[in-house]
Amino acid sequence: MPRYKLIVEYDGTDFQGWQKHATAPTVQKALEAAAQQFCSHPCETVAAGRTDSGVHARGQVVHLDFAEERSPYSIMQGINFHLGEQRISVVSAQKVSDHFHARFDATFRRYRYRILPRSARPSIDLNRVWHHPKPLNISAMQEATQVLLGHHDFTSFRDTQCQAKSPIKTLEMLYFEQVEEEIHVHTKARSFLHHQVRIMVGSLAKVGVGDWTIEDLKTALEAKSRCAAGPTAPAQGLYLEEVGYEASDSFSD
Amino acid sequence: MPRYKLIVEYDGTDFQGWQKHATAPTVQKALEAAAQQFCSHPCETVAAGRTDSGVHARGQVVHLDFAEERSPYSIMQGINFHLGEQRISVVSAQKVSDHFHARFDATFRRYRYRILPRSARPSIDLNRVWHHPKPLNISAMQEATQVLLGHHDFTSFRDTQCQAKSPIKTLEMLYFEQVEEEIHVHTKARSFLHHQVRIMVGSLAKVGVGDWTIEDLKTALEAKSRCAAGPTAPAQGLYLEEVGYEASDSFSD
Repeated sequence: MPRYKLIVEYDGTDFQGWQKHATAPTVQKALEAAAQQFCSHPCETVAAGRTDSGVHARGQVVHLDFAEERSPYSIMQGINFHLGEQRISVVSAQKVSDHFHARFDATFRRYRYRILPRSARPSIDLNRVWHHPKPLNISAMQEATQVLLGHHDFTSFRDTQCQAKSPIKTLEMLYFEQVEEEIHVHTKARSFLHHQVRIMVGSLAKVGVGDWTIEDLKTALEAKSRCAAGPTAPAQGLYLEEVGYEASDSFSD
Repeated sequence: MPRYKLIVEYDGTDFQGWQKHATAPTVQKALEAAAQQFCSHPCETVAAGRTDSGVHARGQVVHLDFAEERSPYSIMQGINFHLGEQRISVVSAQKVSDHFHARFDATFRRYRYRILPRSARPSIDLNRVWHHPKPLNISAMQEATQVLLGHHDFTSFRDTQCQAKSPIKTLEMLYFEQVEEEIHVHTKARSFLHHQVRIMVGSLAKVGVGDWTIEDLKTALEAKSRCAAGPTAPAQGLYLEEVGYEASDSFSD
C-alpha cells in the first residue's frame, strides 16, 4: 500500500490532544475520519509527536497508507474538504517509501513557546499564548539557557507520568526571541520527554521574574527530581513547528 | 470631568465593527457597557478609527470621561473585568488633557494587513489572515508600492460609500514583509479613506499574482474611479496597529 507523509497544522484548543480516545475529540480521530471519507477505507495514522490537550502544531508530521495511489494535491484537498470547519489543515502531502515512519525516523523536533508578558489578557491571541501578567527579563532567561543546552539527565524536567525509557536527552537549541510584545522560546532536540518544553519554560520564567538565579536553575537540573523544577507552563503557548528527517527517508524511490 | 485615553485590542470576528448599532454587537457598545459598569454612570467613547466588521485592532485609541478621577491601572483592570469573555482588552489607560480627542488629534494611523499565501486554509489563524490560495510575488508588489506612496487623489481606492470630504491623502509608508509563511503589508498615513487599505491590498495582490503590471496599477490610480482598482481584500486580514499623537496631546497638564 502506498504510504504518504502529511504536514498538518492545528489549533489545539478544541481537542484533547493528538492521541485517539474513545469519547473525547482528538486531532488523530478527526484526521482519520476525514482520511477515511476521502479514500473509502479505514486509515490509521502515526504522528511524529503526540501533542497534549491544548497544544498547537504548525508542522506535525503524520504518515498513513492508502489502498491506491493518489496525487499529493488531491490528498491534501480531499482530506481538508472532509475536515470541514474543524481547526485542522493538511498543509502538504508527499509520497514516501513504504518504510518511512513519522515517529521513529524523526531526527529532530522543533518547538516554539509563545509568552505574552503584559497586564491585560490577550483578546486576539486568547488560547494561543501564555498570558504572563508579570514582566520577564529576557536577557536573564537567555543566559540561563546555557544550563539546559546540551546532553543532560532531564529527570527534573519530565512529567511524573512520562514513559520514556531514559531521561537523558540532548538539547540542541534553546533561545529567546522578542517578537513585538511577545517573547518566543525556540527549542530543538532529537526528542523530548513528556512536558519537557513546558517545564523548561516554566522554570526559565522563574529566572525571568527574578525568583530564581541561574544557580537555582542548575540546582534544579542536578536534583534529578520533578519537584525541584518550576511549574509546567500552560499548553496553549506551545507549538510543534517542525519535524526533521534524513533527506533519503522523505522520498519514495 | 477627567478624561482618559485607552489603548484597546480586539479580535473583530465576533463584532459588527467598532461603531455603536441598535441591535448588532459592536466593540463600542461592549466597551461602553463595561465602562459604565465600572464607573456607575453612562460613558460615551470616541475612537481614533471606526474599524469595519471583522477588522481587528492591537492599538485602537479611545477617549472617555469619568465623573471622578481613577487610577489608570484600576481603569484597565476594572473595564477588562466587566468585558468578561468578550474578545476585547484594554491594554493601557492614561489620564489626558480635557481637550484630547482620540479621532481629531491623531497624527497618524498605522495598519498591518496579514496574507497567508498557500493552498491549505488556515486552522490556527482562521479569521485572522486573508487566505490567498495562489502564490504572490512579493518583490513585484514591493516595487508597485512606489505608485501609491506619497500625495495622491485616492478616489480609485475608496469605497463608493466613503464620506470623507476629500479623496486626497498622503501615504507615508507602504511596504511588504515576509513573516515566516505569511506576507504582511505595513502602511501609515495621517488618515485613510474608507476601505483604502483593503482596496490597496486587493490591487497590489493583482500585481502579486501577475494579473497586473505596475503600469496597470498606475492607470488604476489615475482613473480616479473605484471600478478601476482591484477588489477590496477581506476584513479579517486587517489590524489597526497604532495611532499616533503629538507628545503634548497625550499627557494631562
